[in-house]
Amino acid sequence: MFKFFVQAKSPNTSARAGILEIPHGKIHSPFFMPIGTTGFVKTLTPDELKSLGAEIILANTYHLYLRPGDKNIKKFGGLHKWMGWNGPILTDSGGYQIFSLYEGNTSHQNKSDFKTHVRVHDSGVEFKSHIDGSIHFLTPRDVIKIQNNIGADIIMALDECIPHHADKKYAARAMKRTHDWALQCKKAHKNPRQALFPIIQGGMYKNLRIESAKFISDLDLPGIAIGGLSVGETKKQMYEILETIMPILPKNKPIYLMGVGSPEDLLEAIDRGVDMFDCVMPTRLARHGSFWTLTGRRNIKNSKYRLDQKPLMENCGCYTCQKFTRSYLRHLFTEHETLGLRLMTIHNLHFLLNLMRDARTAITKGKFRQFKKAFLAKFKAHAVRRRRTPQ
Amino acid sequence: MFKFFVQAKSPNTSARAGILEIPHGKIHSPFFMPIGTTGFVKTLTPDELKSLGAEIILANTYHLYLRPGDKNIKKFGGLHKWMGWNGPILTDSGGYQIFSLYEGNTSHQNKSDFKTHVRVHDSGVEFKSHIDGSIHFLTPRDVIKIQNNIGADIIMALDECIPHHADKKYAARAMKRTHDWALQCKKAHKNPRQALFPIIQGGMYKNLRIESAKFISDLDLPGIAIGGLSVGETKKQMYEILETIMPILPKNKPIYLMGVGSPEDLLEAIDRGVDMFDCVMPTRLARHGSFWTLTGRRNIKNSKYRLDQKPLMENCGCYTCQKFTRSYLRHLFTEHETLGLRLMTIHNLHFLLNLMRDARTAITKGKFRQFKKAFLAKFKAHAVRRRRTPQ
Repeated sequence: MFKFFVQAKSPNTSARAGILEIPHGKIHSPFFMPIGTTGFVKTLTPDELKSLGAEIILANTYHLYLRPGDKNIKKFGGLHKWMGWNGPILTDSGGYQIFSLYEGNTSHQNKSDFKTHVRVHDSGVEFKSHIDGSIHFLTPRDVIKIQNNIGADIIMALDECIPHHADKKYAARAMKRTHDWALQCKKAHKNPRQALFPIIQGGMYKNLRIESAKFISDLDLPGIAIGGLSVGETKKQMYEILETIMPILPKNKPIYLMGVGSPEDLLEAIDRGVDMFDCVMPTRLARHGSFWTLTGRRNIKNSKYRLDQKPLMENCGCYTCQKFTRSYLRHLFTEHETLGLRLMTIHNLHFLLNLMRDARTAITKGKFRQFKKAFLAKFKAHAVRRRRTPQ
Repeated sequence: MFKFFVQAKSPNTSARAGILEIPHGKIHSPFFMPIGTTGFVKTLTPDELKSLGAEIILANTYHLYLRPGDKNIKKFGGLHKWMGWNGPILTDSGGYQIFSLYEGNTSHQNKSDFKTHVRVHDSGVEFKSHIDGSIHFLTPRDVIKIQNNIGADIIMALDECIPHHADKKYAARAMKRTHDWALQCKKAHKNPRQALFPIIQGGMYKNLRIESAKFISDLDLPGIAIGGLSVGETKKQMYEILETIMPILPKNKPIYLMGVGSPEDLLEAIDRGVDMFDCVMPTRLARHGSFWTLTGRRNIKNSKYRLDQKPLMENCGCYTCQKFTRSYLRHLFTEHETLGLRLMTIHNLHFLLNLMRDARTAITKGKFRQFKKAFLAKFKAHAVRRRRTPQ
């Protein structure tokens, strides 16, 4: 029902290529999961995701619990059937969304307001719905039950996600709670068709991260997630934490770095042994007109593309680049036409999924380091504050 | 380059099935043209339009002249190439849009404001751009030149479109101007790869309509359009005007009723001998959540569809109905997801294009009257003020 094999490793790196077999299909690692928070990947049909070569998508427990409701999804025959995607799905537990949604919402920027909307207890989390302000209380057991109803192939334990600037005391307490909740989730989870992944926390503190990595590994669940990164820390901090914990983690389980998705971060994390990723970046950037090329990020709304008859990226095999020019795509944005959002989403997802396929090929050929170096030599990383935010 | 054959007629009706051959392909009449005002059919790719069986689409001279500019389109290799649609295209002259855009725009409702934005002279029309307020003056000759640059297969003469409540004196003057402009357009048009259609006007006055029908027919151009209907008059008025002019028109040319597109109006107009139609209705209704079924119009936002596991319409062959339930489509609308707009657009266009294919089959079998009667017996027409409005 749930198997993971490492097929190849590349010399002078921890990069590895593997296969993850789960109820709805086989996934080739390392892989990136497009985000379908509320039961859809924005602008795309499941058929388009298939054509892009997506092998698994991510949905969100918090959002689906609120709307349409996990019990309704169960009545509909589960999320796969309802949304028309018959490949693998992972559901994030919603812990991150509960803790960040108000912070991420510009109308709720101040801390005091944030505190009135979320209360963490040792037994679970109390929060106000971002939709209608109704009050909800969820225990780790509830979160498992909800994910059982939704029916994803991989489900996540409830965790407490903290800001990158949290002090050590706060980080330690949140980590402890995350560990207790992971145990409770393990106990509550009974469905053999769903694999539960617990989440490593510990903020920016290396000794906490090591403690958490050991605790989470000892739970001996089918996979391991690394949470609480991509929350505003620097790239250097993130890479250092990966370097601290990766050697401790079991080698026979898939490692999932949550919320990470810029091209350079993917390659650096693969280099350090990570197998799974998700991020809103490719889809959200696309809807704001940003697109990736091998030399870096561009924005189609730039007036210099007004008469440009080239595709978004030379030699790109995506549908958008095969069919449309920059001048036409810019026109769609100028006219506020939703087809533009879709065509850009297709390009960015293709770019990232293709980067993962190329990375995998390089690993199987034993040439990942060379591949990464060549890619990063051309690609100008965008100076953006990385942040895993609810879509 | 431009041929029209009538292949079949149905007894006790003027309904006819034909073939229109134009540079970019063959079109089976009667046919409906999805609207791609500004160089795209909202929410859809050209490939999706092909799968829906659309054989021709409509774009708008006024909009394309303003953005991206007809000279730019010429540089891009013409509209077909730029937008990635290699089938036939018709461009409306933009007369209707110039005259109605301010009236249709809620921020410019009052007449005096309308008058300040459009001035009609015998030599052409002066108007303010709805985009940036810049002033433009276009003669009939300019409108042809612009359409030559855009490169559609069928182009339209400039006409003066008047409100349905215009008095007879005003209607007569606008008709006279429309005739003069049609003559000037004919004189200015030289490109043998584009067929020019002149437009019958005359308001709601039968003798003016007869005069206009005769004048326009005598121009002996490859097709004939009927304008100034679907501007707020009753269905009865529209059908009576069709009955007045259709017997006068040549039998060997395609007749195009502009701006008409509700299912019941299409069948009534086909019954009276019309071959071509366009309307924003299927696409615009879709974006507001409305969808057609064989029993009439519904709206997906209705709360009764929240848990509904049926497709939009039973036995519908469209992509949307094959793949998704009403509950899922309603969810997409609740979440303001653009995929919902696309999936509804696909259903409504399929419904209308399929209705036209079924009408054609019924004509070739000599059973159009029975077909129309059976359809209208079940289909509850929506009590909506028909109005051809800029998209």
